[in-house]
Amino acid sequence: MSWNTFGRVFRFTTWGESHGPALGVVVDGCPPGIALSEGDIQPFLDARKPGQNRFTTQRREADEVRILSGVFEGRTTGTPISLMIENTDQRSKDYSEVAKAYRPGHADYTYDQKYGFRDYRGGGRSSARETAARVAAGAIARLVIPEVTVTGWVEAIGEHAVDYNRFDASQIRENAFFCPDAKAARAWESVIDETRRAGSSLGASVACEAVGVPAGWGAPVYAKLDSELAAAMVSINAVKGVEIGDGFAATRLSGEGNADAMRPGDDGEVAFDANHAGGIAGGISTGQPVTCRVAFKPTSSILTPVETITSEGEATEIRTKGRHDPCVGIRGVPVVEAMMALVLADQKLLHRAQVGDR
Amino acid sequence: MSWNTFGRVFRFTTWGESHGPALGVVVDGCPPGIALSEGDIQPFLDARKPGQNRFTTQRREADEVRILSGVFEGRTTGTPISLMIENTDQRSKDYSEVAKAYRPGHADYTYDQKYGFRDYRGGGRSSARETAARVAAGAIARLVIPEVTVTGWVEAIGEHAVDYNRFDASQIRENAFFCPDAKAARAWESVIDETRRAGSSLGASVACEAVGVPAGWGAPVYAKLDSELAAAMVSINAVKGVEIGDGFAATRLSGEGNADAMRPGDDGEVAFDANHAGGIAGGISTGQPVTCRVAFKPTSSILTPVETITSEGEATEIRTKGRHDPCVGIRGVPVVEAMMALVLADQKLLHRAQVGDR
Amino acid sequence: MSWNTFGRVFRFTTWGESHGPALGVVVDGCPPGIALSEGDIQPFLDARKPGQNRFTTQRREADEVRILSGVFEGRTTGTPISLMIENTDQRSKDYSEVAKAYRPGHADYTYDQKYGFRDYRGGGRSSARETAARVAAGAIARLVIPEVTVTGWVEAIGEHAVDYNRFDASQIRENAFFCPDAKAARAWESVIDETRRAGSSLGASVACEAVGVPAGWGAPVYAKLDSELAAAMVSINAVKGVEIGDGFAATRLSGEGNADAMRPGDDGEVAFDANHAGGIAGGISTGQPVTCRVAFKPTSSILTPVETITSEGEATEIRTKGRHDPCVGIRGVPVVEAMMALVLADQKLLHRAQVGDR
Amino acid sequence: MSWNTFGRVFRFTTWGESHGPALGVVVDGCPPGIALSEGDIQPFLDARKPGQNRFTTQRREADEVRILSGVFEGRTTGTPISLMIENTDQRSKDYSEVAKAYRPGHADYTYDQKYGFRDYRGGGRSSARETAARVAAGAIARLVIPEVTVTGWVEAIGEHAVDYNRFDASQIRENAFFCPDAKAARAWESVIDETRRAGSSLGASVACEAVGVPAGWGAPVYAKLDSELAAAMVSINAVKGVEIGDGFAATRLSGEGNADAMRPGDDGEVAFDANHAGGIAGGISTGQPVTCRVAFKPTSSILTPVETITSEGEATEIRTKGRHDPCVGIRGVPVVEAMMALVLADQKLLHRAQVGDR
Repeated sequence: MSWNTFGRVFRFTTWGESHGPALGVVVDGCPPGIALSEGDIQPFLDARKPGQNRFTTQRREADEVRILSGVFEGRTTGTPISLMIENTDQRSKDYSEVAKAYRPGHADYTYDQKYGFRDYRGGGRSSARETAARVAAGAIARLVIPEVTVTGWVEAIGEHAVDYNRFDASQIRENAFFCPDAKAARAWESVIDETRRAGSSLGASVACEAVGVPAGWGAPVYAKLDSELAAAMVSINAVKGVEIGDGFAATRLSGEGNADAMRPGDDGEVAFDANHAGGIAGGISTGQPVTCRVAFKPTSSILTPVETITSEGEATEIRTKGRHDPCVGIRGVPVVEAMMALVLADQKLLHRAQVGDR
Repeated sequence: MSWNTFGRVFRFTTWGESHGPALGVVVDGCPPGIALSEGDIQPFLDARKPGQNRFTTQRREADEVRILSGVFEGRTTGTPISLMIENTDQRSKDYSEVAKAYRPGHADYTYDQKYGFRDYRGGGRSSARETAARVAAGAIARLVIPEVTVTGWVEAIGEHAVDYNRFDASQIRENAFFCPDAKAARAWESVIDETRRAGSSLGASVACEAVGVPAGWGAPVYAKLDSELAAAMVSINAVKGVEIGDGFAATRLSGEGNADAMRPGDDGEVAFDANHAGGIAGGISTGQPVTCRVAFKPTSSILTPVETITSEGEATEIRTKGRHDPCVGIRGVPVVEAMMALVLADQKLLHRAQVGDR
Repeated sequence: MSWNTFGRVFRFTTWGESHGPALGVVVDGCPPGIALSEGDIQPFLDARKPGQNRFTTQRREADEVRILSGVFEGRTTGTPISLMIENTDQRSKDYSEVAKAYRPGHADYTYDQKYGFRDYRGGGRSSARETAARVAAGAIARLVIPEVTVTGWVEAIGEHAVDYNRFDASQIRENAFFCPDAKAARAWESVIDETRRAGSSLGASVACEAVGVPAGWGAPVYAKLDSELAAAMVSINAVKGVEIGDGFAATRLSGEGNADAMRPGDDGEVAFDANHAGGIAGGISTGQPVTCRVAFKPTSSILTPVETITSEGEATEIRTKGRHDPCVGIRGVPVVEAMMALVLADQKLLHRAQVGDR
Repeated sequence: MSWNTFGRVFRFTTWGESHGPALGVVVDGCPPGIALSEGDIQPFLDARKPGQNRFTTQRREADEVRILSGVFEGRTTGTPISLMIENTDQRSKDYSEVAKAYRPGHADYTYDQKYGFRDYRGGGRSSARETAARVAAGAIARLVIPEVTVTGWVEAIGEHAVDYNRFDASQIRENAFFCPDAKAARAWESVIDETRRAGSSLGASVACEAVGVPAGWGAPVYAKLDSELAAAMVSINAVKGVEIGDGFAATRLSGEGNADAMRPGDDGEVAFDANHAGGIAGGISTGQPVTCRVAFKPTSSILTPVETITSEGEATEIRTKGRHDPCVGIRGVPVVEAMMALVLADQKLLHRAQVGDR
């Protein structure tokens, strides 16, 4: 099935292919009266935009967003907000090879198996360009949850992890890698340069934290806050895993080691001694920071030839020329942040649907 | 919000609390004409049932399922199938302590924050007893996808992992731990005995594999097969992470190392040289086994006192007496299998909605 | 497709067949903290209950509802509320005729065409017994919208309409017909007696009004309050039409005649000079009473033989023996009221999801 | 709540305001491989287009549709199809009056009550221009159900009904009124001319028939084919009622008079002696034509001053100058057809989800 809508009451629907005229998103269910202009969205698109430095793909897209509906006199009206981004740099190239042979790790083979044919230009709908639409929608979601601050960062590229002793959130926007560790960021420059020169690619682990989520957002069973976050994160291109709080590390803890003990806080609020749970218990936020970690596989497009088959089932080899991110996880950071904001905005509205503004 | 329905066309809705009279599930959208009786469901419930050996909780529930609707003359009619399981061993005990103080790691605090009060008996709706309903629904899902075989197992309890060189699927049902490695299973006996005697608990990693999924199930963007699986798995009590295929290990691979090269197979089918992707590319099944790994945190109920607060915000300590699984991940195996089957059944029907029986 | 769930955030799922062991409903998304016991639900079921007088079917069902989950210490917990009603009077009779031949006007033929076979006992899932589950759910919905009073009545049986000059709401529960006109009610006694004796049946028009709905509930486009009401009403067995406000009569008005002029009211509220619109403009409530009218066809079960075919396609005749309502619209009144309440409860919660408690 | 998506597996989401830069629709879930170009959509938009003769509004919109995604090499890919129509004739006029006072019958008051403010230019989102997006989506839906022919017509304008003895489907596109009775069409010319000159307006009744729907589409309970049709039709601007088959007339029939007797047909198919049911029994199609009737109220915009209030609650009068349809029901015909096609396409896919291609 094709399913391009996410969310339950704060919902968005994305559309568009890598090499079509444009891509976009319709955001529905947004509360009315929120100040909104293109200027609130563009900075997030700019953060995700390709071609800004030598460490990402050299495709150059302006990624200029245009609001087509849902805003009147500078404020959201409560009706659907349609956003469009025109594709400007669909380089005219020869797609005959990729039209015929399946690139391993890409959706080429599976689209053909599912639909019988596919738009092979730049990956069509399976292109990571779709994530621009999520980032645009996420910028609106942030305005719905002004009480929350969402921050993502790369915590490892391949085997090269940050040192959390050097964690400095102010560094994240200061380098090309959304890296909170200035020293690691410098080291990653040569890691990526080398990888790009070798025509190879690397995976990455991206962390995300939402501070300011009040206790009570979420649902007991099938729209658990963590379940929704997991769906949101794994729906991002190239993502192969997600952890909430300690994630898999929690499997190696004892019950005592994993307990987030509680005590009365200084401010009348409850204080927690730890946050192994990632701010979620029983599917509902605890009031602590909501934290997750997302696994990006290495970019499947590499210059090394890989054995594959043609659409007729013949053996062949393919090497993916063109302009690709050596590490797709880097530009995944604004996308992960967007999905976090989108899930939280939906859960905020769902919560007040059931219990009202308390 | 309370959200107790999962699925898009093959949908199920669960209900019931730990200490209510019964729990159950309504399965809607099931294809008609499938032979179904309680005998098709009970074995899966029996596999999950508590109190069968000294390694799980000593609560003893018959967990006898009753079909209340949707089946006529031994076959599904296409209308909703209502299943009910009566609670028989809600031991009458003193809940005054847990009524007043919040158990860290449990949903006590978050339910109170969300809803203003809670059914504190045995965790109420947040009890893992809810998973019996999923297992019952999952048994029906399996009948919808007879082409698929779903198998789950525990691959690690705490730091104690299986040795995959000794992997033997026939062992999984031969020990109390759903362990595919007979030697590890024997070692786990003393690990769990010790943990139980110490009043402590352990986490676990559960793996699951679905063999026989044809290429083409899934969706390009927000109902990706992997995204749905992630939501399904993280919705299970105590789960803190999920990996598809290589998961986080893929972040440490190069593009070459992660490529699942393809070649013509002997049988006219395509053959893959590896399955790093876990049988899913671009959100759609490749025809390889669909694989995932699920992280269960250690049971939050432990005998060691933990600092906490009362519902009035006073400091106190709590130790969770009663009958608990020392490692809740073990009985998670039938639940993980059920969720895998439920997602696949839904995706099978969604696929043929869009493209028909091809 | 089988689709047994209605609602967007206040949702309910019904299950059960006419001759199965029980039927029921799971209500999800109900706000927490609402006082609820079987006593809040039973009176509405009693109003719909068959066998209470000679004017309805003589099937005698206790229709005793039991709450299986979602209520703790007399209040809703916010988790799913499971209600069950046991079937007690499934008279053991010979279904061989109806098993073989299709009753015109019933779902016999269409179920067979859709699903390949059917539960033919008493209509199976297509039986109007399913509406008991709606009525039970509707009783909970009423508690979610205490500001609203929902009242339904029969305004015509066949050609025999009430005289609105004699409209007296207090009469509605004083006769067997939910008739607000005492004189019409007396006349209907002989109309129904005669129809029953003739083995014939009659249609009916049912009106419903919700007073107290504040301005602002509803949605601009596809979840319009009137659109949701229309779906809700037409989903009731035997319903063939629905009107909002003046309905089809509005097609014969001029723009001037149809205008609901507004002026400042005495109480600071807006006053309307008329309510042609039925309390809804642009899909959103105006603050006036929400009104609709529902068309029930005559009961399809009649004693007169009707030409039909067997499941093998042979010509035959069928007369539907057994215990049937001569006018199914009468017992439709509690069902129409329930659906009105269910739609309004959902819209109330949806409204505060988007705009909060203003 | 704002809710701008309709459908369950074949889904569409519309966006755009009367006086924004554009409006559009995203169609998701469309089967792949269907030949599609703007040329398949434009004729239906042209049929609905304003300003084509003196009987409709003189607003002149090109209503040129552009496909922005989801089509590759002339065929649908299975991914979302984004359609956009630019607004070109948003006449710059003075909206100060309508900005301040509420037009009775319009959504002005209710939008303000719901959202706190509104886009008052041309009705904003509540404008009937939104229906252009439905018509565009409906053109795609028709391609999904090539076995079905959908035809709508006006059967009455105000008190002026067609004579069904003169019904001639070939006349429908031969006059300005979608009128199947040539004589009535001529009479309606002066009716509409007179109404327009008087600054008044008229209601209309629109009929629609879908021929070729096989038996078996639909659902037993809450996604009944008739329930979905009712929701679809009542979601159209200015619609106040819907009838399936005989609708309210069935309330005045006896069971015998309403029976659609069945017999073996000449062609091995079943033959029906009548179609009181409108081709739907138990929520599922019978194989007969699916028929419905839709009530359009008179256009609320009239030149006669009507009492109303300002947004500050002061008494005032308003007369709606500008370019309006004297009878909005006329241009409702292509919209009614579109909604019929959209519901049927969704039900076709839902049906094969559950039972496959049989």
